[in-house]
Amino acid sequence: MSEPDDQLRRLLERAAVIADLTQARSVLSWDENTYMPAGAAEARGQQMATLETVAHRMLTDPELIALVGDLEAAGFPDGSVEAATVRQARRAVDQATKVPVELVEALGKHVARARSVWAQARQQQSFAPFAPELERMVDLKRQEAAALGYQDHPFDALHDQFEPGSTAARVRSVFEPLREELVALVREIQDSGRTLDDAVLRQTFDEDAQRRFALDLATAFGYDTEHGRLDPTVHPFAMSMSKYDVRITTRYQRHYLNTALFGTLHETGHALYEQGIDDAYYRTPLEATASLGIHESQSRLWENVVGRSRGFWEGAYPWLQRAFPGAFDKVRLDTFYAAINRVEPSFIRVEADEVTYNLHVMVRFELEQALLGGELEVRDLPEAWNARYAEFLGVTPPNDAVGVLQDVHWSIGLFGYFPTYTLGNVMSLQLYEAAVAAEPSIPRDIREGRFSRLLGWLRENVHRHGSRYLPEELLRNATGSDLDAGPYLRYLKDKYQALYGLA
Amino acid sequence: MSEPDDQLRRLLERAAVIADLTQARSVLSWDENTYMPAGAAEARGQQMATLETVAHRMLTDPELIALVGDLEAAGFPDGSVEAATVRQARRAVDQATKVPVELVEALGKHVARARSVWAQARQQQSFAPFAPELERMVDLKRQEAAALGYQDHPFDALHDQFEPGSTAARVRSVFEPLREELVALVREIQDSGRTLDDAVLRQTFDEDAQRRFALDLATAFGYDTEHGRLDPTVHPFAMSMSKYDVRITTRYQRHYLNTALFGTLHETGHALYEQGIDDAYYRTPLEATASLGIHESQSRLWENVVGRSRGFWEGAYPWLQRAFPGAFDKVRLDTFYAAINRVEPSFIRVEADEVTYNLHVMVRFELEQALLGGELEVRDLPEAWNARYAEFLGVTPPNDAVGVLQDVHWSIGLFGYFPTYTLGNVMSLQLYEAAVAAEPSIPRDIREGRFSRLLGWLRENVHRHGSRYLPEELLRNATGSDLDAGPYLRYLKDKYQALYGLA
Repeated sequence: MSEPDDQLRRLLERAAVIADLTQARSVLSWDENTYMPAGAAEARGQQMATLETVAHRMLTDPELIALVGDLEAAGFPDGSVEAATVRQARRAVDQATKVPVELVEALGKHVARARSVWAQARQQQSFAPFAPELERMVDLKRQEAAALGYQDHPFDALHDQFEPGSTAARVRSVFEPLREELVALVREIQDSGRTLDDAVLRQTFDEDAQRRFALDLATAFGYDTEHGRLDPTVHPFAMSMSKYDVRITTRYQRHYLNTALFGTLHETGHALYEQGIDDAYYRTPLEATASLGIHESQSRLWENVVGRSRGFWEGAYPWLQRAFPGAFDKVRLDTFYAAINRVEPSFIRVEADEVTYNLHVMVRFELEQALLGGELEVRDLPEAWNARYAEFLGVTPPNDAVGVLQDVHWSIGLFGYFPTYTLGNVMSLQLYEAAVAAEPSIPRDIREGRFSRLLGWLRENVHRHGSRYLPEELLRNATGSDLDAGPYLRYLKDKYQALYGLA
Repeated sequence: MSEPDDQLRRLLERAAVIADLTQARSVLSWDENTYMPAGAAEARGQQMATLETVAHRMLTDPELIALVGDLEAAGFPDGSVEAATVRQARRAVDQATKVPVELVEALGKHVARARSVWAQARQQQSFAPFAPELERMVDLKRQEAAALGYQDHPFDALHDQFEPGSTAARVRSVFEPLREELVALVREIQDSGRTLDDAVLRQTFDEDAQRRFALDLATAFGYDTEHGRLDPTVHPFAMSMSKYDVRITTRYQRHYLNTALFGTLHETGHALYEQGIDDAYYRTPLEATASLGIHESQSRLWENVVGRSRGFWEGAYPWLQRAFPGAFDKVRLDTFYAAINRVEPSFIRVEADEVTYNLHVMVRFELEQALLGGELEVRDLPEAWNARYAEFLGVTPPNDAVGVLQDVHWSIGLFGYFPTYTLGNVMSLQLYEAAVAAEPSIPRDIREGRFSRLLGWLRENVHRHGSRYLPEELLRNATGSDLDAGPYLRYLKDKYQALYGLA
């Protein structure tokens, strides 16, 4: 065995152990969020912290770091699996070593505190008590960004952790033209004077019937329950405990169908990605996804591009009618289709429709940059938040709880994260159009309840690659083009102009 | 801080991390046995093996071993928490270091093989294919016993892992007089010509109603669902993932009430023990139980001494009648009480009644000693098995599947384990009698559906001590006497002579 090959073997041995520990931690986290008895919370936190500490110690082992350095010097060919493996190992090592231990600890402690103060502040509908905690958080995150390193903006260093290779400038170049068009589209919809009635979604739906129907759709899409399962939770998520065990969760509302139905389709999209990673990457640094943006492109594609399309419901509507006897017998398909696509500017991101959703994200993206860049003081944040909402969405939150305090992200130190939601939307259409270009029968398949050709294309062009490619590289290989909001915008316009009877 | 105190602190720091890893492994194991999708089995095995390896590496760290040696030399007072902590750390280190790595690996590999061959052999109802695997297993376990060290018999070394301080000679001294009396009691029962009808247990019972009723009884006993839960599984167990999260599992049979009902009470007894360990021992070497025998004393006490007593059902029978509407309306309490205590010599240990159960255990205890001692060849085992069944129980298994192949234990290398079941039975009565002597109102409490006084006594005298005392020490402290089958035998005679109308 040549020296680099032997070094790579040793790297992979260590990476496999770290992967096991990370996956074990995921099992504990899944359990924590589904079935764990409440009184076990503290002990569970301790167990998870220990797994993290042990993995962190392995990632910061000088022998491992030396191995990664040697392997970089060995110069595996660009684009090779070996080079990608070394690149991902370097990313992991850098994330574990660049930020000083004291700062990591300070952040950990501050997250625990800030999260709890945030929850209280939100309860009280008042930003003021949270302000000093957020100030300290912004300060710590700026320090973290400095430790990680960046060229233009501290945002870039933090954003890169979720979207490798992306920057604030890159995001802006996509968001700014998109925003203008979306604001205009929202205005057009509002000016039309038309509203879509969603009363049919607000009947009474048996929880077990919701579960069965959502899971039926998930498995129809291709979700493999031999390697996954669906459970109830409070804040839904998909979680991989190895590519052979990718679980989804959802939340049931007895009097509102959307939450569990589209929530499940969304998490299914995430899970299909993780289940589709190449077997060869199991327990290697490539048994991961390319980025949160690519991840979100998969969840949005199945939730929205497929799951909220008229074509899909042409096939699936009779299934829905059978799943909820009586509820939809006298409801026309078009009434249902309109109901699930009702557009309405609102305060809350997670309840937003397809059109307005991205404007919520853009508010956060702008404010976060300004906070990290020092152009906006934390104390001025609520005012800036409300001003942006008025400008982008035409609504003003009546209090901070449904305004600046609605998301948990900043309180737990997630900066640079929000744009990945909209990047996902943008890429979902680029990928879907490329899939249809390659396999023109996909729209008909979807109308007829067959999803294997679409899934097959995504498997081949996205899923199986795991984290072998950087996200924009993956996108280019799959679609032949760079990040481009054009297809997404056309999709929204076509769909919603038709729904709202616009020009 | 004195030097020993500082060393103890360092020992406890390391022990806490090892405890977290062990508890994390328990979460993975619980999940594997309840909700894990089938396709995840191999990856889960890998994750659990890695957690074990990492914990093992920490246990065999020369610095830790040196610490334990120094702390032993420091001479903490006998009976102190410190001395017990050091003793338990020594046990853990010895178990991790005394057996050579090559032997541990050989055993691990052979277990995987032998278990699968055993399952096939059982399927084929034939011992022959399993014989060479068992021969090799006996050989490996003899090597393991030699590595662990013993004075009299290789059995002792293996048995000590489950029942610290106990030996084959000790067990024999309790089992032999007990056996004679039990064989005589079984004969008396059979000669009486009377059989107790258990048809009332073989009606149709809704699974959800079974679950609710079993859990109601468990919580009435004192099982804390803030720190535990009940789930379905194939092979029921109780599992601690820290004393703050102790879960029980059961199996439901639609047409047989006993399995889930008494199975749950049994696991509840185990769980009450683990939930009751002193908070101060959390994440220390004392956050464990004294032995499997003591553990079993708790499960048997709640399952049998309480759960199969007439007094208990005086209070609980109306609850049962309400839980299964219609099923017991016309059934007299005495009919039900007789049904749940039907004695019948049979082939299968896990289905055996209170009286014959111990004879099943004694067969295994004798044969195991003979195998490990070299007095019995594996090829002669089925014949020896059947001869013992004829002698002790008066029945001869029609084939090896319901004979020598019925238990998984030997195929997975569990030698020295079986006697703990009967030691548990014996101690359950010693402990119960001591509890009643201290709190004479306990029998009345039980009749009236109150269990807190009994639980309180067990908490105080057994549970809270974790693994602070060796099992016989704990027993002596709690009851004032050594291991003694007298109370158990009197209990069985009184109960079953009354049930069967004997002299």
